[in-house]
Amino acid sequence: MSAECTAYLLRLGDDRLVLGHRLSEWCGHGPILEEDIALANIALDLVGQATLLLKLAGEEEGQGRDEDALAYFREAIDYRNALLVELPKGDFGVTIVRQFLFSVFAYLQMNALQKSTHAALAGIAAKAVKESKYHVRHSGEWIIKLGDGTPESHDRTQRALDDLWRYTGELFLADEVDVAVAREGTGINPASLEAPWRAEVEPVLRRATLTVPTSGYMQRGGRAGRHTEHLGHLLAEMQIVARSYPGATW
Amino acid sequence: MSAECTAYLLRLGDDRLVLGHRLSEWCGHGPILEEDIALANIALDLVGQATLLLKLAGEEEGQGRDEDALAYFREAIDYRNALLVELPKGDFGVTIVRQFLFSVFAYLQMNALQKSTHAALAGIAAKAVKESKYHVRHSGEWIIKLGDGTPESHDRTQRALDDLWRYTGELFLADEVDVAVAREGTGINPASLEAPWRAEVEPVLRRATLTVPTSGYMQRGGRAGRHTEHLGHLLAEMQIVARSYPGATW
Repeated sequence: MSAECTAYLLRLGDDRLVLGHRLSEWCGHGPILEEDIALANIALDLVGQATLLLKLAGEEEGQGRDEDALAYFREAIDYRNALLVELPKGDFGVTIVRQFLFSVFAYLQMNALQKSTHAALAGIAAKAVKESKYHVRHSGEWIIKLGDGTPESHDRTQRALDDLWRYTGELFLADEVDVAVAREGTGINPASLEAPWRAEVEPVLRRATLTVPTSGYMQRGGRAGRHTEHLGHLLAEMQIVARSYPGATW
Repeated sequence: MSAECTAYLLRLGDDRLVLGHRLSEWCGHGPILEEDIALANIALDLVGQATLLLKLAGEEEGQGRDEDALAYFREAIDYRNALLVELPKGDFGVTIVRQFLFSVFAYLQMNALQKSTHAALAGIAAKAVKESKYHVRHSGEWIIKLGDGTPESHDRTQRALDDLWRYTGELFLADEVDVAVAREGTGINPASLEAPWRAEVEPVLRRATLTVPTSGYMQRGGRAGRHTEHLGHLLAEMQIVARSYPGATW
């Protein structure tokens, strides 16, 4: 395999680890027991996928780092997630809108990666695509409920959508890593997912009576390690136990 | 059904809701990704069981309170969980020892409740007993690993066991509620579970090279609403969102 493949696996893993952690912030703080459980389940799926992807990235890298070393002992600048997933969880509307926008992307991505020439990655994708399908359905139903709900819930959801939209462009930006993995058949070029993503996302937003934002300036930087300050805070919290007791189980 | 049956269901539900919340405090803070996922899975099982049990309690009570009303809009004094489950999560050793002591109890309890004359409760028990079996196995394996590990891990686990032991007596205390539900066949008398609990717990502790504490004074009060200050803090955190926006999904 290639250095690009390792870099690509890190991106896949980091997106899921960071978003899984953001979602887990809802643990025990949701307004409804059922929804608390649903969000925690999605978080678990994402952290589970991240564990597999980071383990594989560590093996590809061949420097003896396992998934825990990659999760707990990298700095923000070494993380390769898209900015979208590191933004604060916000209110329930922000959480749901972000989840929907990301999940449709993740579903299309994992669906394509089932045909990766990298057998282990194809195997992870085959499992993940089923989970992502559920995430799309769950968050999509909520979008409609919130968008087409009370004036208050509609406005908050529209605001969340307007705020988050400018972070979606980065998901589809292709750089030399993407081009290389697409060429070797291990990965896919994310640019190819933008049209199908829009075809999935826009009808749901319209059913939710939300206005699809016009695409203006798009934020970017996460894939190259240029993150918002929010990632630093998230990592500080996530890494404190592992770093305080390296190698221990406490 | 009876007022005692409602009270009994509240005890079953509250034990699981409070312990599930305590476990969820580990979400994203564990030292190992795999273990983070395992604890979160156990937390989800427990909150899931609590949701079903509190829903049933609300139906039995017949005053229109659903599981969310019972979870988010009762004060500490109205909670009926055993004190054991409300104690702070402590370090990983405390969390694991508590989980093991409670899970063996929960397993025996749910195993017996599969024969409840209350069909809905018997159904919940049939599902819960499978989950509890896994919780016993997972926490039991950790007890052995920690107790029979390094001198440091052994000492911390022994200390956790010594501290928590005096909260186990309450699990088996029977009052008029327990006697009534045992008589009507809807519930079981917890006193009947103490001998089988010891028969399960003690061999594992010995395999873990831990000293089984001698039974001295046992703490009590939770079943009657007399709680430690820790429950108040836990509920404040758990209930803040639901209480800030009653009836809303934000």
